[in-house]
Amino acid sequence: MREKAHVREVGPRDGIQMVKTILPSARKLAWCRGAVEAGIREIEVTSFVPAKVIPQFADAEEVARGALAMPGLRPSVLVPNLKGAERAFALGVPIVNYVLSASEEHNQANVRRSTEESLQDFARIAAARDQRPGARIGLGAGIATAFGCTISGAVSEARVVEIAVRLAGMGADEIIVADTVGYGDPGQVRRLMGAVIAAVRPLPVACHFHDTRGLGLANVTAALDAGVRAFDASLAGLGGCPFAPGATGNIDTEDTVFLLEQLGFDTGADVERLVALRREVESWLPGERFSGAIARAGLPKTFRVSASAAA
Amino acid sequence: MREKAHVREVGPRDGIQMVKTILPSARKLAWCRGAVEAGIREIEVTSFVPAKVIPQFADAEEVARGALAMPGLRPSVLVPNLKGAERAFALGVPIVNYVLSASEEHNQANVRRSTEESLQDFARIAAARDQRPGARIGLGAGIATAFGCTISGAVSEARVVEIAVRLAGMGADEIIVADTVGYGDPGQVRRLMGAVIAAVRPLPVACHFHDTRGLGLANVTAALDAGVRAFDASLAGLGGCPFAPGATGNIDTEDTVFLLEQLGFDTGADVERLVALRREVESWLPGERFSGAIARAGLPKTFRVSASAAA
Repeated sequence: MREKAHVREVGPRDGIQMVKTILPSARKLAWCRGAVEAGIREIEVTSFVPAKVIPQFADAEEVARGALAMPGLRPSVLVPNLKGAERAFALGVPIVNYVLSASEEHNQANVRRSTEESLQDFARIAAARDQRPGARIGLGAGIATAFGCTISGAVSEARVVEIAVRLAGMGADEIIVADTVGYGDPGQVRRLMGAVIAAVRPLPVACHFHDTRGLGLANVTAALDAGVRAFDASLAGLGGCPFAPGATGNIDTEDTVFLLEQLGFDTGADVERLVALRREVESWLPGERFSGAIARAGLPKTFRVSASAAA
Repeated sequence: MREKAHVREVGPRDGIQMVKTILPSARKLAWCRGAVEAGIREIEVTSFVPAKVIPQFADAEEVARGALAMPGLRPSVLVPNLKGAERAFALGVPIVNYVLSASEEHNQANVRRSTEESLQDFARIAAARDQRPGARIGLGAGIATAFGCTISGAVSEARVVEIAVRLAGMGADEIIVADTVGYGDPGQVRRLMGAVIAAVRPLPVACHFHDTRGLGLANVTAALDAGVRAFDASLAGLGGCPFAPGATGNIDTEDTVFLLEQLGFDTGADVERLVALRREVESWLPGERFSGAIARAGLPKTFRVSASAAA
């Protein structure tokens, strides 16, 4: 029995929030269906932001409804505030993710309010969730710029841990620690993730890495060392942050699955089917920058074979 | 006092052995000079292979002589056999590196003989070295395909350790464990490097990684965990192996220095000067594929600043 590790596809949300092409809802849903067929079970399918802020997500309701009807998929959505959360709750989305920034300056740039105000907003979202009848809706709480910020520079580890503890106390079902701008290094990831896990135990803690400075998979490895077993990733390494100029996207889904499987974890996903899906998604997004090593170089002959097993 | 870690530039050897442009000796030496000015102290400057095998190295003597005259540089050269070693010894090169493959099939493809025959050749090179008067010439012994082989697949860790022990017994001054085709993963790197270091202690052990499948810097981090403190790398991620189709090159020098410094090690090198040098080298090699994240995204604001130090 191999230990499980989870890769959550965030391409239909984080991956396309800055691309030039507005993808039709049908293609967003085809992407989700393809990912499910490749063994991905959790997908952040859209964002409930106002359409005038990010036109890509004008069809959030339609995509969420399509995803909710998809067999084998556990969809989540991102919400920027209570209003977005209410829209998601009304549709019956089972997992709703909220994000604030550990960096005050990044939070102001992103949502025009202080980190404290964003924390209070999360408390209101959790209260609204608790008042709903029926099955408990899972609330994910993301901490952006947890490893540093392009605007303000270093972010203290103590502050990130404190925010995680407060979010946990307010009713988060998962803490998602995000390296929004690709500043994290493996030493920092090991320290901070160990501290966050210890502080919010037994709440699950996930990581959201960007590969801006080539350390995305080194950071996944470091987070595994610290005990993290869930990772956001985007097919073809799509994604980006408006406040991280020159940045590349999220860590690549195919490469992340490859690494986890190669290290002996069971992700449930099939790298080659993901690569085939990636080719399709690439064809829908002309002019974008795609990254990822396995799509270029292929799997090694030693995939899933521990070298030590060979005589 | 930060702990030291060494990045050895192998671009003028491994980096250009497959490029389309034959670089003039003056440019090879300008590359070396630029690297020294950026703080790199060890450079594998050329290869003493027959010019008819790799025309790029027809000027090996001239480049080696120029490098030997360069203040602040500790040059090494690669030699494929005793004949090449004799050429290097005659010039007074202080460090001579030899390489054989742990994979029989790769060794046959590369040098048309068995790994055992290559080991015997190394014994003859070491004996020839020992008979020379004057300062002892350092012999580096590289073990290629130590993490697997595109031809034969898995390579057993026991075999790599055994080869390392034999090379050490024959008079090697350093063991260089090479992931020639980019098959290594961080788990395997930690295991194998720990085993090799324990088996040949106190002989120094270095790593030579290729970034074929995006795990180059994750593997550097894993090797650091195992105690490795010396890494081969190539400016702009140049390099490749004729038996690794689709492969990208060596790990990128600038990115490797960035990672090591970010983790708190002292490399003595300056990332921004390396990026400037890289731009120059790129301009000399039209049509080649260059990789590397720092040249694209820049250094983080938190470079060398531990996030935990900020309040």
